[in-house]
Amino acid sequence: MEALKSFEELLDRFVALGQRKKVAIVCPNDDHTEYVVRRCAQENLVDLVLLFDGDESDEFREFCKGFKSITIIKCEDMAAAAREGVRIVHDGEADVLMKGSLTTDVILHAVIDKENNRGLIAPGSVMSHITLVDAPVYHKLLMFSDAAVIPNPTLDQFDSMIRYDSQISRKLGIERPKIALIHFTEKINKRYQVTTDYVELINRASRGEYGDIALAGPMDVKTACDAESAAIKKIGSEVVGDADVLIMPDLEASNTFYKTVSYFGKARMAGLVTGTIAPVVVASRADSAESKFYSLILACLAS
Amino acid sequence: MEALKSFEELLDRFVALGQRKKVAIVCPNDDHTEYVVRRCAQENLVDLVLLFDGDESDEFREFCKGFKSITIIKCEDMAAAAREGVRIVHDGEADVLMKGSLTTDVILHAVIDKENNRGLIAPGSVMSHITLVDAPVYHKLLMFSDAAVIPNPTLDQFDSMIRYDSQISRKLGIERPKIALIHFTEKINKRYQVTTDYVELINRASRGEYGDIALAGPMDVKTACDAESAAIKKIGSEVVGDADVLIMPDLEASNTFYKTVSYFGKARMAGLVTGTIAPVVVASRADSAESKFYSLILACLAS
Repeated sequence: MEALKSFEELLDRFVALGQRKKVAIVCPNDDHTEYVVRRCAQENLVDLVLLFDGDESDEFREFCKGFKSITIIKCEDMAAAAREGVRIVHDGEADVLMKGSLTTDVILHAVIDKENNRGLIAPGSVMSHITLVDAPVYHKLLMFSDAAVIPNPTLDQFDSMIRYDSQISRKLGIERPKIALIHFTEKINKRYQVTTDYVELINRASRGEYGDIALAGPMDVKTACDAESAAIKKIGSEVVGDADVLIMPDLEASNTFYKTVSYFGKARMAGLVTGTIAPVVVASRADSAESKFYSLILACLAS
Repeated sequence: MEALKSFEELLDRFVALGQRKKVAIVCPNDDHTEYVVRRCAQENLVDLVLLFDGDESDEFREFCKGFKSITIIKCEDMAAAAREGVRIVHDGEADVLMKGSLTTDVILHAVIDKENNRGLIAPGSVMSHITLVDAPVYHKLLMFSDAAVIPNPTLDQFDSMIRYDSQISRKLGIERPKIALIHFTEKINKRYQVTTDYVELINRASRGEYGDIALAGPMDVKTACDAESAAIKKIGSEVVGDADVLIMPDLEASNTFYKTVSYFGKARMAGLVTGTIAPVVVASRADSAESKFYSLILACLAS
């Protein structure tokens, strides 16, 4: 199967699979999350459990009552809504957790739930984040990690990112994901720990630890994505100019990539938290309604 | 004066100033550097000293002989050409040094010249790099540091970058440059040294150490450049959404910005080395002919 080219194809794939998924949305009070609810309901894409904290509008509450695919649960406040959303996913009553208008801190506190050990962290697993990019310039969707959770990945954390990104790539239909390890040059240099970590990760890949993937690097973002630039630099590899996934060296680079590709590159973005027992969507305040919608679809495919 | 909007306006400004500058180009043997030479000669923009190492084509050599604005100096090999180019600029016989087809290592070795102390490093100064971006999405030219020289800037190195970027901004006609200090959030956090460095830099700016500038941060790239995103985040400052300059936290982020804005954002790029006694252009192999041309014009304006 060919790699997906756009978010529209992502939605088509989800619909074609015909799997009914249920998504719990905590505090869908902002315009963008309301859009996601309305669109999912009107196009009958998923079942929804909405955790209301009393701050939603009358009009929106009435709208929701008109759909069998929507279940409403009234909660006392934001924190209670977050806890109830997490409980529902923890108990297997929903496949995906999504954040509405509350802050990321509040929902992640419930997701992690150190006090009661009833959160969504899978035992022994590394929590991370993937972003899926639909960029006008690029010939297919592009995934990258980690623009949200891990500031300075260790070798083990890089290892987990590669596993998550490979798993989700396969769910999007890519049998042998091409993964680029990003750094500012192609040189391996002990002064830069990431470059020696990358060597070890490539060794692990060649031993088959990640299944069928093509892993290469270090290389920069342009070499990973632009066949012409890669040709000028005379770097030959299955990955260069055709990456499905970028593993970014740290959060400064990853956040810069996120913000630059979305603003300067007019790309659409979707994302989710990985390493949890179910995908968690924690889109940022500045993300568009469309971005939140496709994050939900991506999470349903990944679940 | 309004900020320049495009590289065409940059060239117009240089021509309007009516200053005759001389540029020494080391080994102009590749197609892109040849384009720069031909265009400068045909449009009579600058005087050129070309350091040939014998690898140039007969046709190009003949072309050069037809222009009074071009002086040719024959050298034994690349390293000799690099040394002679540096000597010419060191002795004040040219205003700008530019690299042709040789590797950056060879030219920087001559620029630094630890052996003879006849290089281009200004005593006690920090060598750094600025890039100027002409991005279709952005409403004016955007400068940033450092995508080439300093991997992990110290406080003093950040200080120097702000000075260089301010000086060059003023030469481009921006009286009060708006400078954004880039980080992945707006929060100041002792765990991230750059954020506390940024606080100190803003203190220095408020004491007037950098002249008339607006300095703000930490903030991410999108907040610095996109007024809409800044408004959603409710961050108010003269800089947000309207930055003239981005100070990047490290080379991983800066290189990622460079590669992403140029490839995904279809931006044109120009750049030069600062902290030297004269601007040095060390464009990369993968840079376009146009990028090399506008780097030369930028360097002439900065000299």
